[in-house]
Amino acid sequence: MSEGTKQLKNYKGYFIDLDGTVYAGKKRIPAAKRFIASLQEHHKPFLFVTNNSTQLPRDVVKNLSENHDIHVQPENVYTSGMATVDYMLANKPRANPSVYIVGEIGLKQVILANGFRLDSDHPDFVVVGLDSDLTYEKLSEAVLAIRSGSTFIGTNPDTNIPKERGMMPGAGSVVKFVEYATQQEPIMIGKPRPRIIESALKKIGLAKDEVVMIGDNYNTDIKAGMNAGIDTLLVYSGLSTRQQVSKESNLPTYQIDSLDEWQV
Amino acid sequence: MSEGTKQLKNYKGYFIDLDGTVYAGKKRIPAAKRFIASLQEHHKPFLFVTNNSTQLPRDVVKNLSENHDIHVQPENVYTSGMATVDYMLANKPRANPSVYIVGEIGLKQVILANGFRLDSDHPDFVVVGLDSDLTYEKLSEAVLAIRSGSTFIGTNPDTNIPKERGMMPGAGSVVKFVEYATQQEPIMIGKPRPRIIESALKKIGLAKDEVVMIGDNYNTDIKAGMNAGIDTLLVYSGLSTRQQVSKESNLPTYQIDSLDEWQV
Repeated sequence: MSEGTKQLKNYKGYFIDLDGTVYAGKKRIPAAKRFIASLQEHHKPFLFVTNNSTQLPRDVVKNLSENHDIHVQPENVYTSGMATVDYMLANKPRANPSVYIVGEIGLKQVILANGFRLDSDHPDFVVVGLDSDLTYEKLSEAVLAIRSGSTFIGTNPDTNIPKERGMMPGAGSVVKFVEYATQQEPIMIGKPRPRIIESALKKIGLAKDEVVMIGDNYNTDIKAGMNAGIDTLLVYSGLSTRQQVSKESNLPTYQIDSLDEWQV
Repeated sequence: MSEGTKQLKNYKGYFIDLDGTVYAGKKRIPAAKRFIASLQEHHKPFLFVTNNSTQLPRDVVKNLSENHDIHVQPENVYTSGMATVDYMLANKPRANPSVYIVGEIGLKQVILANGFRLDSDHPDFVVVGLDSDLTYEKLSEAVLAIRSGSTFIGTNPDTNIPKERGMMPGAGSVVKFVEYATQQEPIMIGKPRPRIIESALKKIGLAKDEVVMIGDNYNTDIKAGMNAGIDTLLVYSGLSTRQQVSKESNLPTYQIDSLDEWQV
């Protein structure tokens, strides 16, 4: 651990980013595997807090198990799709709320499994996320509904998702399209916005000063933690570099090079 | 003509907006028909300067003739698609430039008729406009090419296009998607940006102080004229109202209620 970022606290719970923190694309991060095993050994509750709304918790669990030899439960996964559902449940205008969804099957399944029904005409909510089958027609339905009064929700503001072809357009790009065509700002759920963290605190059942957000990306993970008012731990195993972060006026609570440096 | 906006000048040429100025959707504007006939009678050169990139000049001519009894030539039409071509011809990096197009058949035809060849891998230019067959794949091709160094051009920044279903997403919404996913600003051609006006001046062969831009929309037509440094005439037959415009710090050169008030 670097000078000046000494571990001062024993946290009761952990929020952990996935890509860049627990694995690096298809590559394993062995220190992360040891860290997760240590959390389990010490019975410390943890949630993987991810902006990815296209995957279901069981898909995340399967990928971690099959490709990274990390073994967790679906209950350890909290996606922006699940946080979107929790936001809508807390703000629904009636018992059987309706929704129009621009997004993939993972997002649709988690929403429909929670008592929402699909409606494109006058939905209570329009949820906009990443959709690799995006069309002008789907975007138009979303735009017309929001212009008619539906509540506009964006799953996450990611500009891109890294794929083999390159930096493909992310959920935030889809949201920007709808934002411009409606001239309305969405209620944005994912990191770096604090909603997903506040919602994860409810799910894990701990107070703000009892958890720490761990991630590799200053602009999403660390800012989300800061925006929600919880401690943050930046691990330099992914996107952000010490050089970039040293220029920031708000520094993470802790900065480490490997999760091996952290005492659970 | 209103007090304080007396017609002071006899212009040599006219730039004229279409929807809201020459017709109102499917409804005719009789004063506009008389105005166009008067321009023709006095042999005054004029161009319809339109942000619509999906139509070819012959389509515009056909619509004016069949639905509004206004008879003009294809040479009287200057679309954002044509202005896009003129921009690319003036800035092409080599003799046989390549382009990737997100747009409809009208935009593709005008570009391909001017010596450009299609290429999605490493095009010199990526042109983004309105496309009612928009897909994630098309958007991804545009984003990947721009991220690899292609010049990013937006046909026009319109937020919406009015259709029977309502205010559908406009070209600007498609451009915003690509802008966010590339984190690059486009070279924007259409109104209220001045490029389409500067390019129309070359086409009509007149100087800035010899033409006036006529339109019904303060935020597109009038601002385009102001941004290009030419005189402007706001006719209250369409979108803008005197009440809205009175709050602006920069007023149009002239404001009238009907084109019947204007002496050619």
